[in-house]
Amino acid sequence: MIPTITAFEQSPDRGMGLARDTRVRWALEEVGQSYEVRLVSFRAMKEPAHLALHPFGQIPTYEEGDLALFETGAIVFHIAERHAGLLPDDANARARAITWMFAAVNTVEPPILELGNAKLLEGDRPWNRERLPLVEERVRNRLNQLSARLGNADWLDGTFSAGDLMMVSVLLRLKSSGILGEYPNLSAYVARGEARPAYRRAFDAQLAVFKSKPPGRLEGAANN
Amino acid sequence: MIPTITAFEQSPDRGMGLARDTRVRWALEEVGQSYEVRLVSFRAMKEPAHLALHPFGQIPTYEEGDLALFETGAIVFHIAERHAGLLPDDANARARAITWMFAAVNTVEPPILELGNAKLLEGDRPWNRERLPLVEERVRNRLNQLSARLGNADWLDGTFSAGDLMMVSVLLRLKSSGILGEYPNLSAYVARGEARPAYRRAFDAQLAVFKSKPPGRLEGAANN
Repeated sequence: MIPTITAFEQSPDRGMGLARDTRVRWALEEVGQSYEVRLVSFRAMKEPAHLALHPFGQIPTYEEGDLALFETGAIVFHIAERHAGLLPDDANARARAITWMFAAVNTVEPPILELGNAKLLEGDRPWNRERLPLVEERVRNRLNQLSARLGNADWLDGTFSAGDLMMVSVLLRLKSSGILGEYPNLSAYVARGEARPAYRRAFDAQLAVFKSKPPGRLEGAANN
Repeated sequence: MIPTITAFEQSPDRGMGLARDTRVRWALEEVGQSYEVRLVSFRAMKEPAHLALHPFGQIPTYEEGDLALFETGAIVFHIAERHAGLLPDDANARARAITWMFAAVNTVEPPILELGNAKLLEGDRPWNRERLPLVEERVRNRLNQLSARLGNADWLDGTFSAGDLMMVSVLLRLKSSGILGEYPNLSAYVARGEARPAYRRAFDAQLAVFKSKPPGRLEGAANN
């Protein structure tokens, strides 16, 4: 059965691949599962039909027969559980890969989201100039620790896993900030992720959506 | 095999149950798995021995034979996968319960963490008074959506699951802010979680640790 995911009709990042459908597309590409995409507008995302699928009014969602899921990490995990290629067979290695999935979204991403909020939602506030370095420092605290753990390894725990997929996706959000560039091993790690053919296909697919749509007003971008 | 978790030697919340070992204790109590606890000081958490277990220098960790895990969500999931009681048997219901686990840590918790940072790390900054309402509004945006989805149900998706365990734990962080009280159904939901015998045992166990230690200087509290 071919699953259907949802994605922005007009991605607020203009096709840079930072919208969360890219993470799900990447997972589907890694395991060789074809999929369909239903595009939703910012307005439709907040209407009852979409809220029934995604209580927080966001993308992506995932529908497969009578199963409907939301929340990127959970969708990636669902794909990883049902197909080979994203989780190790060994039980302990599998548990550690899942650990990195949660570490990506609950330990590394929160300060990155806070930095995004500082720029997108508070960029015009009088305190922004003085406050931004504090928020950046919280991001660096996490990256210092992540960089120390990764060391010279290619991936976080042996072979590439859903944990790396999530961590690379989270770190990609930092690219435009310049902070990632301060960490050569993390930059190389992210580049390894981006170089994977499955990532390229996922990236190209989301970019094609953006290019096919007239770039009108990107209303609501700051809320997504 | 009896697992060993780590917890604060002196919890920065003075035994209010908000340190993340409570989530893991709660999961272990729900499934009836006994466990041992190794207490770590703030200083020891940042030293190589602990960093080898937890690259971000936090608690809790989980050791069971030759398996070592960190990251609360992953530990709770590991426990839920290996014991009955925290995940439904039906495959689709199980996937939805896992969805709520990720929603708790990646959609609902980030604005709550940001609110915590605003109070703990920026409470003395000149912008705090004006900025705090903005951050609280981000929390309310999420709670509005969560409250609408929960409605009059007891739990988020049928019977109590690891998704509820994580969501209740995340919402408990809001108790002192007064924001949770604006949502009667979410307040009742959290109270249902707190009333579970397994939660009570977990709470009492972490409180007993705090009470057994002389309440000296709570150094480093703001960083945890």
